[in-house]
Amino acid sequence: MQNVDEDTITQIVLARHADATDPRLKQIMTSMVQHLHAFARDVELTEEEWFKGIQFLTDVGHITDDNRQEFILLSDTLGLSMLVTALNNRKPRECTESTVFGPFFVENAPQYQNGDDVANGAKGEPCFVTGRITGIGGEPVPNARVEVWQADSDGFYDVQYEGVTSNQGRGMLRSLADGSFHFRSVTAESYPIPHDGPVGRMLAALGRHPWRPAHLHFMIEAPGYERLITHVFRSGDEYLDSDAVFGVRSSLVADWQQHAPGRAPDGTEIDTSFRTLDFTFVLNQAGAAVRSNAA
Amino acid sequence: MQNVDEDTITQIVLARHADATDPRLKQIMTSMVQHLHAFARDVELTEEEWFKGIQFLTDVGHITDDNRQEFILLSDTLGLSMLVTALNNRKPRECTESTVFGPFFVENAPQYQNGDDVANGAKGEPCFVTGRITGIGGEPVPNARVEVWQADSDGFYDVQYEGVTSNQGRGMLRSLADGSFHFRSVTAESYPIPHDGPVGRMLAALGRHPWRPAHLHFMIEAPGYERLITHVFRSGDEYLDSDAVFGVRSSLVADWQQHAPGRAPDGTEIDTSFRTLDFTFVLNQAGAAVRSNAA
Repeated sequence: MQNVDEDTITQIVLARHADATDPRLKQIMTSMVQHLHAFARDVELTEEEWFKGIQFLTDVGHITDDNRQEFILLSDTLGLSMLVTALNNRKPRECTESTVFGPFFVENAPQYQNGDDVANGAKGEPCFVTGRITGIGGEPVPNARVEVWQADSDGFYDVQYEGVTSNQGRGMLRSLADGSFHFRSVTAESYPIPHDGPVGRMLAALGRHPWRPAHLHFMIEAPGYERLITHVFRSGDEYLDSDAVFGVRSSLVADWQQHAPGRAPDGTEIDTSFRTLDFTFVLNQAGAAVRSNAA
Repeated sequence: MQNVDEDTITQIVLARHADATDPRLKQIMTSMVQHLHAFARDVELTEEEWFKGIQFLTDVGHITDDNRQEFILLSDTLGLSMLVTALNNRKPRECTESTVFGPFFVENAPQYQNGDDVANGAKGEPCFVTGRITGIGGEPVPNARVEVWQADSDGFYDVQYEGVTSNQGRGMLRSLADGSFHFRSVTAESYPIPHDGPVGRMLAALGRHPWRPAHLHFMIEAPGYERLITHVFRSGDEYLDSDAVFGVRSSLVADWQQHAPGRAPDGTEIDTSFRTLDFTFVLNQAGAAVRSNAA
């Protein structure tokens, strides 16, 4: 008869998966059980600590609803989301790097023409964005689908406001024949992730702040190229080295130049300061994703 | 500036815990992040698989309420609960081994005298239980607090029945001057853990059944001794080698002898078959818990 003890239990659990018909599920669960058990052994987890963990996960589950995904927040703040993003988006050095998707993307954002103001009422210092989309060889990528979304000057996305039903600070546009695109918006600001729940309590207990540095989200799709999901961060932001969700890749930090009131790039006169940002996005070829040779 | 990539992210996350003031929390989170990241790397977790994991944990959280603790069930079925029990209950070879506590203990169960029927209406074949509580040297432990709880012949605990408010198949009694105790109950049967939720779906996907072998729960406390939480399993049960929660230690399996109708140990005439069970519980000295020298 089996004797389950601290030395035998891991192999006994793994042997119980012998009949799993999905080999990938079996592989994932095998590794997961091994690491879960190794963690408990490494720290000699006490029964009281185990129960605190159960209570923490219960709290994470109970605050999660259609509008708030605390498990994703937990994954983000433990660096798991960014690690998974990195593992799944290996590409040649010349390509624009990927970063985390985040929870604030909205399907069916409004379509805009180049030059339009995607702020659509979002508050903030005006910001004029120009971009260029190319392949690795520098060839322009015309008619790419460019989705952009961002927080306003108070650090909130439109979906975080009660009662805001219009799309503000988000939209879709297409690159022109030369691969370029341009639009007006407002300057994104740094903001704290939701920290009034269990993940916020975890961050506080670890002496961590909940802030993300200012950034503009992009998702770019074009036939023949890999989809690119990334941010452009603002140089000089105080949280660039301590992003609560570990999303900062140094290649994604750009200068969002500030200008005195006056004539803007679109020819209008602006009576406040405004910024300009220019960034080139280099797409990887479709089907060229580099995976390691892990089993 | 930091560049977060798949090679640097783990150290960057761990460095973010530099200001944690609780050294034990820091130790636990350091190991947890290392193993979580190592798991994702080992299996090259895809973004789709990551999201399935998020959805699974969300389902576990949403089915959990005051009456159902699916996270504990998840911990149980992954062998984590039994591993933590084993790590925290190392003791000399002569002592009765511990096993998982389970979710069906109830505070303030009725007090019984030796010889009483703790079934209190629970269905099943009569079972007469005798026990002895000793220390390692064989000395009897009188006046120990003995809590017992069990499922009925349908495999259900009282708390699993809608509308059953009396305590059935559970109670507290005290050992006598010679360390012995005895009571009447019903024969516990094997039963499936709740498997109509996400944990049940996980077990099915892994080709695992949800059954636990028949067992009687005991929690024994006496001054000067370590509290003992354990089960006594029934020899011959078909699930002894495949307990869904990995709780079987071979030293805890006993013969629950079946007898033809006739005179029972308490002198009464029984017109059905009945069983007798005898087990000796050897308690560890208080303060003698063996912990390894892990940091």
